[in-house]
Amino acid sequence: MKLPEKTVERLSEYRRTLLNCLANGKTHIYSHELAGLHNITAVQVRRDLMLIGYSSMKKKGYDAQELISVIGKLLDCEDGLNVGVVGMGNLGRAVTAYFNGKRPKLNIVAAFDVDPNKTNRVIAGVNCYHFKDLADVVKKSNIEIAIIASPPSTASMVAEQLVNAGIKGILNFTTIPITVPDNVYLEEYDMITFMEKVAYFVKQNSMK
Amino acid sequence: MKLPEKTVERLSEYRRTLLNCLANGKTHIYSHELAGLHNITAVQVRRDLMLIGYSSMKKKGYDAQELISVIGKLLDCEDGLNVGVVGMGNLGRAVTAYFNGKRPKLNIVAAFDVDPNKTNRVIAGVNCYHFKDLADVVKKSNIEIAIIASPPSTASMVAEQLVNAGIKGILNFTTIPITVPDNVYLEEYDMITFMEKVAYFVKQNSMK
Repeated sequence: MKLPEKTVERLSEYRRTLLNCLANGKTHIYSHELAGLHNITAVQVRRDLMLIGYSSMKKKGYDAQELISVIGKLLDCEDGLNVGVVGMGNLGRAVTAYFNGKRPKLNIVAAFDVDPNKTNRVIAGVNCYHFKDLADVVKKSNIEIAIIASPPSTASMVAEQLVNAGIKGILNFTTIPITVPDNVYLEEYDMITFMEKVAYFVKQNSMK
Repeated sequence: MKLPEKTVERLSEYRRTLLNCLANGKTHIYSHELAGLHNITAVQVRRDLMLIGYSSMKKKGYDAQELISVIGKLLDCEDGLNVGVVGMGNLGRAVTAYFNGKRPKLNIVAAFDVDPNKTNRVIAGVNCYHFKDLADVVKKSNIEIAIIASPPSTASMVAEQLVNAGIKGILNFTTIPITVPDNVYLEEYDMITFMEKVAYFVKQNSMK
C-alpha cells in the first residue's frame, strides 16, 4: 500500500511529537491532544492512523512508544537509508548539522562540493568529497537519497549527475525547480514559498 | 477573497519560475510548460490562474512579466513586510543569507540571539540584537513576521514572546510544533518531515 503524500507528512510529524512526549515523560496521548499540537482535527488524526491499521486508543490515549514503532515500520527502511548533500555552504552545513543524529534510519554519510577549501575535509561531522567523485562515492557508500543545497544556477546540472549516479530520491533546497525521471522521487523545498505563504495570510488577516 | 493555502504555495512557485524564465530571456510560457516544471497538470495551472482572474494565455503563452505582476499584487504587501529571525546559529544564518535580496517586498531586518558573541553585531547582513530586546526592536522596526531558528527546546518560549511582542505570522523551523492564537498565522517547516517523505517514497519505489 502506498500512502498519500500528505498522510506520510503527518505520520512523520506525529512521530516527531510522540518522541518529544516520551522525552518529556509523557507515555500516552489522546487523538485530540495530538490534533491540537498539529493544528488539525482529531478526526483527521484518527483517519490517518486507521489508514495504517492502528486504532487502539485506550482509555488513557495512544501508547506513544507503540505508535512510534508502528509509524517507524511504515516510514523507515529496515536497513537505513544513506543520504548525500551537494553543496556545503551555509545551507548545506545547516541541514547536515540539523539532520544528523535525529533519525537512526536516515543518515547523511557524505557531502560534495567543488571548492578545494571544503573538499577532503570533515564538515559538520561528514566527509566532504569533490563533486567530480560523486558517482564513485554514491556507489561505495550506498547513497540512495541526495539533498541539493548548491547555488541555484547549478541545480539542473547537479540533478542530472545525481540521477546518472543512481540516486533514487532528491530533496531540492534551491530556488530552481528541477525535473527528474519518473523512477526518482523529487521533493522541492523552497523556503521562499513558505515565507510568502506566511506573508500572504498575515496580509489577509490584517485586512479583516 | 482568501485563497486556499495550496494555491498560494503554487502561485509563489509559479512566480519563482517566471522570474527564472525572464532572467533567461524567455518572455512567454505555456500552461503546459509551467505545469511540467512543477510536476503538476496544465489543468491545475489554468485553474489556479482562473481563480486569481488571470486567463489571458495568448498564442505564444502567458506573458511572464504580466503574470509576475498579477501574482505580486495578490501575494505581496504594497509597503513590504519586515521579518525577524530568532536564533543565529547555522540555520538562522543560512536562512537569512538565502532569503535576503530575493524578494523586494519581504525583508529580514533584524536577528535575535542570546549568545553575547552574536549580539550587537551584523550577521549575514542583518543587525543581531539580544533576545531580551525583542519587543522593542519589533515595535521600532515594524516587524510583522518572525522565523524561529532557535534550539528546539526554546521554541515554545520563543513563540510566546513573539506573540506578546505583536508578531502576526510565524515560520517555525524547529522540530518542535508550537501553538499560537488564531490571529497569528503559523507555518511549521520541519526539514526532517520532508526527508522522511523522500525516504518513504524511495522505499516504496524500490519495492515495485
